[in-house]
Amino acid sequence: MTNQFNSNNLKTIAYSQIIDLTHPIHPNIPIWPGDPPTEIATVSQIETDGYFLRKFSMGEHSGTHINAPNSFYAAGASIDSYSPQSLVSPAITIDLREQSLANPDYTLTIDDILTWERQHKLIEPGNLVLLYTGWQEKWDDERAFFNRDDRGICHFPGFGKAATQFLLEQRSIAGIGTDTHGVDTGQDESFVVNKLVLKTQRIVLENLANLDLLPAADITLVIGILRLLGGSGSPVSVLAFVA
Amino acid sequence: MTNQFNSNNLKTIAYSQIIDLTHPIHPNIPIWPGDPPTEIATVSQIETDGYFLRKFSMGEHSGTHINAPNSFYAAGASIDSYSPQSLVSPAITIDLREQSLANPDYTLTIDDILTWERQHKLIEPGNLVLLYTGWQEKWDDERAFFNRDDRGICHFPGFGKAATQFLLEQRSIAGIGTDTHGVDTGQDESFVVNKLVLKTQRIVLENLANLDLLPAADITLVIGILRLLGGSGSPVSVLAFVA
Repeated sequence: MTNQFNSNNLKTIAYSQIIDLTHPIHPNIPIWPGDPPTEIATVSQIETDGYFLRKFSMGEHSGTHINAPNSFYAAGASIDSYSPQSLVSPAITIDLREQSLANPDYTLTIDDILTWERQHKLIEPGNLVLLYTGWQEKWDDERAFFNRDDRGICHFPGFGKAATQFLLEQRSIAGIGTDTHGVDTGQDESFVVNKLVLKTQRIVLENLANLDLLPAADITLVIGILRLLGGSGSPVSVLAFVA
Repeated sequence: MTNQFNSNNLKTIAYSQIIDLTHPIHPNIPIWPGDPPTEIATVSQIETDGYFLRKFSMGEHSGTHINAPNSFYAAGASIDSYSPQSLVSPAITIDLREQSLANPDYTLTIDDILTWERQHKLIEPGNLVLLYTGWQEKWDDERAFFNRDDRGICHFPGFGKAATQFLLEQRSIAGIGTDTHGVDTGQDESFVVNKLVLKTQRIVLENLANLDLLPAADITLVIGILRLLGGSGSPVSVLAFVA
């Protein structure tokens, strides 16, 4: 349906709906431990200045955001170097709610991927693979969203190492995304999945919203980044074009 | 070419190229008088924290950005309330470089619009009208970009009041954009054009880049906003899909 060449050698995105996959940004959004707070302050007002304007301050990985390779590799590409073409990509969604509800530490397996493919179709090269874990519904409850135990360790689902390797090597995907704060599970403190995917300049999206509104496949994502020079990532706009 | 319904009642965007219409963001971008500085600071480093991450602070109207109605009308819509559909729009470009080179205070006239239409086609309802003044080339030289006179008044070209009214009333456009820091000319301190366009929830884009790479028509813009709750606008991603 989407991103295919037609007879004139044009690519086409065919859609009936556009869905925004981002959470609104405000000072009370959940913040990763150690990350800076999201702060907003009024700078100009209509009565005195002729227009209303604020300043805002946030981390490069706060809100719905993208991670760049230089976040994990010193010599990795920074966010400002992503080509426009790489930010427009077909996507599929894997519904992991049942597994995640039963086990908040659940990690996507190769079996889950093969089951999805039996139900839908082969995951084609260049796709983004999005996990819908149900965590998006916990966004307004920071405690539930991070789900820390007594030792302060987070518990939320993510991609598994073997499944990620399978998707990269056997399916040549363009990247991954999730509705939790990390493509790595909450318990993982080595960022193994981030590092696997960002070994080259691929896409990692975190804190996605509205994944319940997406079909399983035939989605095109248009990712709008801020070209922060040298940045480790940025808050993003993610618009999903759906047939 | 773009945004048309096909036989299956799907809209389509047909394209061969995607062009990014934004300037990179860094601490030395030109800042509107009175607006906050763009500040960036490192928060986490790979060696000590396992990942590199920065925080950034900027004004809602800094860099390539969109203005929302609440910036000029207390009861106006804020940036977080734009529908995804309203952020995907056909666009046309008017090349105003010759007039702007001769007169940095030049304002678009109804005659300029009618001349463009004779050369190309009628501007259809729902289009965005972008002015390519050549000011994008001055972006890295703040002095030339604002072009202040001895009294501190800026001199850069913009939309005229009559031309804007014509576009809104006679052509039912969806909004406007420019490569200068204001859709109003530099000398205008009453923001008459902003106020005309943002009387309803339309699009105003400022500090656009790469307009030299666009054709005159048959462009689709996908505008990626940050959904800053209650915000007066936001830095944006603007991707132009061109056949």
